[in-house]
Amino acid sequence: MKSRLVGIAVFAVSPLAQAASDEALNTAWLVLASVLVFFMQAGFALLESGMSRAKNAVNVMMKNYMDGCVGGITFWLFGFGLMFGSNITGWFGMSHFAPHDGEPWDFTFLLFQMMFAATAATIASGAMAERTRYSAYLIGAVVISGFIYPVFGSWVWSGIYGGQGWLAALGFIDFAGSTVVHSIGAWCALAGILVLGPRLGRFAADGTPRSIPGHNLSLVALGGFILWVGWFGFNAGSSLEMNVSLGLIALNTHLAASAGALGAFLAQRSTSSPVLLTTTVNGSLGGLVGITAGCATMSPLFALLTGLVAGGVVVFGMRLLERWQLDDVVGAVPVHGFAGVWGTVAAGLFFSGDLFNWSRVGVQLLGAGVAFIWAFPLALMLYLLLAKTLGLRTSTQHEQRGLDYAEHAEVGYPEFNLAVTFDSNDLPRRV
Amino acid sequence: MKSRLVGIAVFAVSPLAQAASDEALNTAWLVLASVLVFFMQAGFALLESGMSRAKNAVNVMMKNYMDGCVGGITFWLFGFGLMFGSNITGWFGMSHFAPHDGEPWDFTFLLFQMMFAATAATIASGAMAERTRYSAYLIGAVVISGFIYPVFGSWVWSGIYGGQGWLAALGFIDFAGSTVVHSIGAWCALAGILVLGPRLGRFAADGTPRSIPGHNLSLVALGGFILWVGWFGFNAGSSLEMNVSLGLIALNTHLAASAGALGAFLAQRSTSSPVLLTTTVNGSLGGLVGITAGCATMSPLFALLTGLVAGGVVVFGMRLLERWQLDDVVGAVPVHGFAGVWGTVAAGLFFSGDLFNWSRVGVQLLGAGVAFIWAFPLALMLYLLLAKTLGLRTSTQHEQRGLDYAEHAEVGYPEFNLAVTFDSNDLPRRV
Amino acid sequence: MKSRLVGIAVFAVSPLAQAASDEALNTAWLVLASVLVFFMQAGFALLESGMSRAKNAVNVMMKNYMDGCVGGITFWLFGFGLMFGSNITGWFGMSHFAPHDGEPWDFTFLLFQMMFAATAATIASGAMAERTRYSAYLIGAVVISGFIYPVFGSWVWSGIYGGQGWLAALGFIDFAGSTVVHSIGAWCALAGILVLGPRLGRFAADGTPRSIPGHNLSLVALGGFILWVGWFGFNAGSSLEMNVSLGLIALNTHLAASAGALGAFLAQRSTSSPVLLTTTVNGSLGGLVGITAGCATMSPLFALLTGLVAGGVVVFGMRLLERWQLDDVVGAVPVHGFAGVWGTVAAGLFFSGDLFNWSRVGVQLLGAGVAFIWAFPLALMLYLLLAKTLGLRTSTQHEQRGLDYAEHAEVGYPEFNLAVTFDSNDLPRRV
Repeated sequence: MKSRLVGIAVFAVSPLAQAASDEALNTAWLVLASVLVFFMQAGFALLESGMSRAKNAVNVMMKNYMDGCVGGITFWLFGFGLMFGSNITGWFGMSHFAPHDGEPWDFTFLLFQMMFAATAATIASGAMAERTRYSAYLIGAVVISGFIYPVFGSWVWSGIYGGQGWLAALGFIDFAGSTVVHSIGAWCALAGILVLGPRLGRFAADGTPRSIPGHNLSLVALGGFILWVGWFGFNAGSSLEMNVSLGLIALNTHLAASAGALGAFLAQRSTSSPVLLTTTVNGSLGGLVGITAGCATMSPLFALLTGLVAGGVVVFGMRLLERWQLDDVVGAVPVHGFAGVWGTVAAGLFFSGDLFNWSRVGVQLLGAGVAFIWAFPLALMLYLLLAKTLGLRTSTQHEQRGLDYAEHAEVGYPEFNLAVTFDSNDLPRRV
Repeated sequence: MKSRLVGIAVFAVSPLAQAASDEALNTAWLVLASVLVFFMQAGFALLESGMSRAKNAVNVMMKNYMDGCVGGITFWLFGFGLMFGSNITGWFGMSHFAPHDGEPWDFTFLLFQMMFAATAATIASGAMAERTRYSAYLIGAVVISGFIYPVFGSWVWSGIYGGQGWLAALGFIDFAGSTVVHSIGAWCALAGILVLGPRLGRFAADGTPRSIPGHNLSLVALGGFILWVGWFGFNAGSSLEMNVSLGLIALNTHLAASAGALGAFLAQRSTSSPVLLTTTVNGSLGGLVGITAGCATMSPLFALLTGLVAGGVVVFGMRLLERWQLDDVVGAVPVHGFAGVWGTVAAGLFFSGDLFNWSRVGVQLLGAGVAFIWAFPLALMLYLLLAKTLGLRTSTQHEQRGLDYAEHAEVGYPEFNLAVTFDSNDLPRRV
Repeated sequence: MKSRLVGIAVFAVSPLAQAASDEALNTAWLVLASVLVFFMQAGFALLESGMSRAKNAVNVMMKNYMDGCVGGITFWLFGFGLMFGSNITGWFGMSHFAPHDGEPWDFTFLLFQMMFAATAATIASGAMAERTRYSAYLIGAVVISGFIYPVFGSWVWSGIYGGQGWLAALGFIDFAGSTVVHSIGAWCALAGILVLGPRLGRFAADGTPRSIPGHNLSLVALGGFILWVGWFGFNAGSSLEMNVSLGLIALNTHLAASAGALGAFLAQRSTSSPVLLTTTVNGSLGGLVGITAGCATMSPLFALLTGLVAGGVVVFGMRLLERWQLDDVVGAVPVHGFAGVWGTVAAGLFFSGDLFNWSRVGVQLLGAGVAFIWAFPLALMLYLLLAKTLGLRTSTQHEQRGLDYAEHAEVGYPEFNLAVTFDSNDLPRRV
């Protein structure tokens, strides 16, 4: 303990020491932001599990628990180097793989970025819930966090160890990752649900959608709150330092999330739909995804507007997917994809001091489009390959019985009497 | 990303830059404290939902989710200006409405205060649970966070943009809001339950109270823990800066909460009552409310004493309300109101270096009394007006069926077999 | 409020003021770390409750809620002085009991250490769940946090107020408490379950183990996430200051936790066992316990290795206990004890710049052994004494009915229809 105390009154006696102290401050800030971003993993687990049926509760949470673990280790091995390593061509990094030695700041920065990679990887789990084989899912998460996400990331965020991404060179703005993290994750999710097809019973033979209610809305609400809490670390942490603009970033984040819930509320009321907790939570998450790109370069009024629109985008996006007979269990594609595109555009539209500069908006649209063109086909190939080899979708028997029983030999609520819901079905499987 | 990194080794090379750095530190501190205070919103949602019946779980959580959203936006529009704007008369602020431009610190300060306003607004939701119309509740939350709370707040905490509140001028001490936030919220809650009347079945025809157990005590315990966690941000954040006294503030907070649980434990044992989890959690929350006023101006022993007494105040306060046939579902009035008054007095009694100065205690009593005189009649009028126009209480049919089904078309636990409890009843409704 | 604002922009205009500012920074850091460590208490409550049966859900959470309260107050009264007071002999401290006055840093440091004491005390609750009398358990928690834990702690961590512990003088390394906190807690837990004997039905008459599934695995997963979140404060907070090495400490923590889950996954697969959520969560916690001793003195690759092995240690340790017919409900002994020993050894093996120095490893083994020799016999005597006097184990009738009903008159899920599981039994009780 004594040795732990030695440093306490040491730093900042000379300008030189003061410089060291500034790095200490930023280290503390980034560690705390990393903790908040990691907490989002719990938020995803609860939200996705709560929106699934009780028979898959363990499976959904295990996917979120393990994709953070294997995704984090994979990102350390390959992803970090691909994303942030020396980027001479502008298309991928080529140094700092499996960083073992280094300056203190390298480790701090790596920690924060590992949490981001886990977020990108975990987005697909909710969309693909209740019918995806556990092992195949984890392989998918490894590829996303070790290749698909970091390569795109290198086009926008690289430079710390030299070089610059080609999208960044064009002036593309994505402060904390509406596109880099959320849309990339969402397009992988979209590919996944296309390959998987909908859950048994989600659509009747004639295509009529049938609602499959989530088993535990307390978990959904808590998951939403935790994601919101963690997002302050996601956005304000992306400044990578303690500075005076953190307050504006966090305020914009909060206003957009609040407005996102309000936007979803209004969108539901405007179409005489009941105001669902699940949809309202998704609205606030849409607001958070939307503000992620522009949270540092927008004034509060526009942050509120960005969130309000994002809430509506989520509501109508969920209906669109349903009309297309796509079964996204938690609404990950509308929340992280559609709202992510809107937020990326909004960051261009509402850029402080340069509102409605259409060439800026054009670059933003280009970046959002490139993200789709990169991630969606790759993820489609990935999941098709997994489907043809290992098998991506569980057997009908396993799906009916529940993945908890079939894949984990452990059920979420062994003492509670459960009603069997929505198990029979007549729908053909897609792919 | 590169542009995100530019600032890292910049500040603190000259005294001038150093001054900027100090603001950066305080910004980071206040953002983190804001995150903790926001997390309390999740704590309230879980605690209140867990103490309600399963048929209202969605409704209770939706109220907590949405009052933070609409309350926050309302506070940004009106409340902040009323509370902190230039306060020439000492009775209300008159600038900084809907702040859009400003110095970085303005946004940071606004963020923190928005979280406080949401806390004040959400206190009523638990007391009024299981029988309040959703839309009427939200209108109430808007009025509390946009008018009732900020006007009283301006009497104590204004001054950042000029002027001084009249209670502050008298020497009234309320460091983080035992009175300003918690009692104000509680007196609004008291008005609400008076207007609403008790839930069907809460009291027999002859007035005998009947216990209606909460549906999920795991949520209650977790909610209690989360509130406790968030309270460190509430109290230590109220210093508005990183300074050496944060440790004492947090220690006092923790000791008072622990002692509050112990006080409730002892109060229950001393009356041969069973030691309930719900009551013990409420005891610790009472300790937290109690220490909120004096956490920065008390030594640890008195913090412990303040919390211990607060725990007893909560237990006997809950019995008092029951004797008066008032149905406060979660005990919000004893926890936030009665313990808030005690804490406000304790801040005067136990002021460090000036113990038991009765003139100081007198000012504290005056402030606590003024809070009641301001908030209770106003809230009574508000809820009576809502009752006469929109309708404040749901129909008997909706109350029996549960607000989740009636107002949200979504239930909390669709797969779980629930026993119907406490639905029939013979009690006349109040008001 | 105005007075709350006075300090902003004051410090750091001269070197002297700057020194004050450094203490302010470290205060803020330690308060935030304390909040994270306190949050672990919620993680324990959820994890342990989720792994128990529904009929004991309230009891388990109440134990975690109250041991933090009474343990904290006890530590303030006695423990802090024993652990950190002036330690002339090297065997225990003798000053700073019930600290009431002092320098600001004293309070900050006390706060952080109170959270650690509560962690040590709460470890036993999970192992001894579902059959321990409430009052006897709390007395045990008081003795652990007020005597067993702090005396051992003084051998390693004392010195802030003079003197040095004898183990520290030998060069024993335990940065954040693999041994000091976690193993000490685990050996107390081991003594407790030996004295208690297994739950009714846990082992058949012929010794065949029978699995008693936890009632709510959503709570287990969330508890695991929260513990992981809090552990960043536990480990990085133990540096007691903001410095540049916090990033490495947190990165090592995260890698070890991830690798712990992976290690448990691999250990289960390698023995053709199903991959359980409960065991996987325990694997990550084992990784966290394991890295706690060496997180500041290891490079990331070795942190990963430490965690990976710890995950396996947990899996095989759980089987070992089962073979010995010891009923550790949550696996606290393997997670905190066995993985703690491994982590203490690993801190010696993988010491940066001095790998595989066997004399260093010897000191680590000595420290781990001394912890067992100190805590286990003492705790055994404590629990035997409680068993002979107050009674440590509840009656068979209470155990069958559930401690919630018998001891708290409150049940966790009053509206949910529960299936009775594993109640009958033929097993004789131990001790």
